[in-house]
Amino acid sequence: MSSFDDPLFRVYAISAASMAILMASQAWITVYRMTKVKGGFRSPEDVKRSPLNPNPSPEQVQPNEYVERSRRMHDNHTENIPLFLVVGLLFVLAQPPLWAAQLALYGYVVTRILHFAAYMTAQLHDVRAAMWTPGALAVMAMAIYVLVSAI
Amino acid sequence: MSSFDDPLFRVYAISAASMAILMASQAWITVYRMTKVKGGFRSPEDVKRSPLNPNPSPEQVQPNEYVERSRRMHDNHTENIPLFLVVGLLFVLAQPPLWAAQLALYGYVVTRILHFAAYMTAQLHDVRAAMWTPGALAVMAMAIYVLVSAI
Amino acid sequence: MSSFDDPLFRVYAISAASMAILMASQAWITVYRMTKVKGGFRSPEDVKRSPLNPNPSPEQVQPNEYVERSRRMHDNHTENIPLFLVVGLLFVLAQPPLWAAQLALYGYVVTRILHFAAYMTAQLHDVRAAMWTPGALAVMAMAIYVLVSAI
Repeated sequence: MSSFDDPLFRVYAISAASMAILMASQAWITVYRMTKVKGGFRSPEDVKRSPLNPNPSPEQVQPNEYVERSRRMHDNHTENIPLFLVVGLLFVLAQPPLWAAQLALYGYVVTRILHFAAYMTAQLHDVRAAMWTPGALAVMAMAIYVLVSAI
Repeated sequence: MSSFDDPLFRVYAISAASMAILMASQAWITVYRMTKVKGGFRSPEDVKRSPLNPNPSPEQVQPNEYVERSRRMHDNHTENIPLFLVVGLLFVLAQPPLWAAQLALYGYVVTRILHFAAYMTAQLHDVRAAMWTPGALAVMAMAIYVLVSAI
Repeated sequence: MSSFDDPLFRVYAISAASMAILMASQAWITVYRMTKVKGGFRSPEDVKRSPLNPNPSPEQVQPNEYVERSRRMHDNHTENIPLFLVVGLLFVLAQPPLWAAQLALYGYVVTRILHFAAYMTAQLHDVRAAMWTPGALAVMAMAIYVLVSAI
């Protein structure tokens, strides 16, 4: 495998680690929001009295939009980021030109951070879509490059 | 790592890229379907007036089965394909016989494409289950092979 | 790439294969539960008469908590395990000390199996949260290590 000394692999490792940190952070945002509103839980046992939930109530398992937004964002990361992480690795192993790797991988990272910001602040659907599209195209292009290289 | 010259790795790269393309395509199918029915959205801000949504209405965030089918399919890809992508990579790194890699990886790809077709066209649950099962068994078998190789 | 002879890579391969088996098993638990209650299905076509469903009824597509618990657990795996699989691989490629890899990777595996057991048996939210947290911290720490190594 390309090691951390290989410029192509480093572009990948920087991009992959950044996206992993973003996705991992979303879970903590959900935890923060559930803690703040003391609700937005999902399992029946989450409305039992416990040290962290001394005053439970049935409404705590009702959907709470403040929490649900973070869950929808997490779902969006889950649909997109693991696929990016694997496709990006195969792409750099296929030895593309460095500029192509920088464009696809850093382009993905930048637009996905903008997508995160747009979703978090409830921008118009159009804005969110515009920030999702470049990353979706980058993953598709990288996957096709890998397929063609392997055939 | 096995490079693209290694026959085992090429079987993996072809399979992985094919499944990545399938999964990435599902998002575009959802986008197409949302655009066609002008609905099936999920966030409150998606019913604000915007250039792409000049005549918004509250029903646009109601679940729409035509869109929901594509979302369920995407969820199914998300549950299955990233796991396959990583397990398949570890499997070929464990140096199985080439025929075993071809059977597990190409078998996964073929049955998952049939599963996609069955789900898209709303075939009986039995058909969908029959096309899901070989891939699920292949992933389990590859993961056990990796575990045994590593211990 | 580190091969199966490299101690660091073996720690990763054992951890990754274990988590892949856990995640792949969850789907079978859902299948077992759907079969047992003859319900908890999700698609309209799942209430058509078929060899595996000779006596269909509309209630079969209503959410069933016994099945939904396994689906929530699967969602939780899907949000967490593929990310762990990729981040863990990049982490061992960054050549951390062996003890750090053992701590992060085996720690993840042990606490995630405990999380699985706590969720399956509907323990208090506090217990589930306590078993989720070490793995979430391990993934974050490994991703930061990779990012710093690559920069």
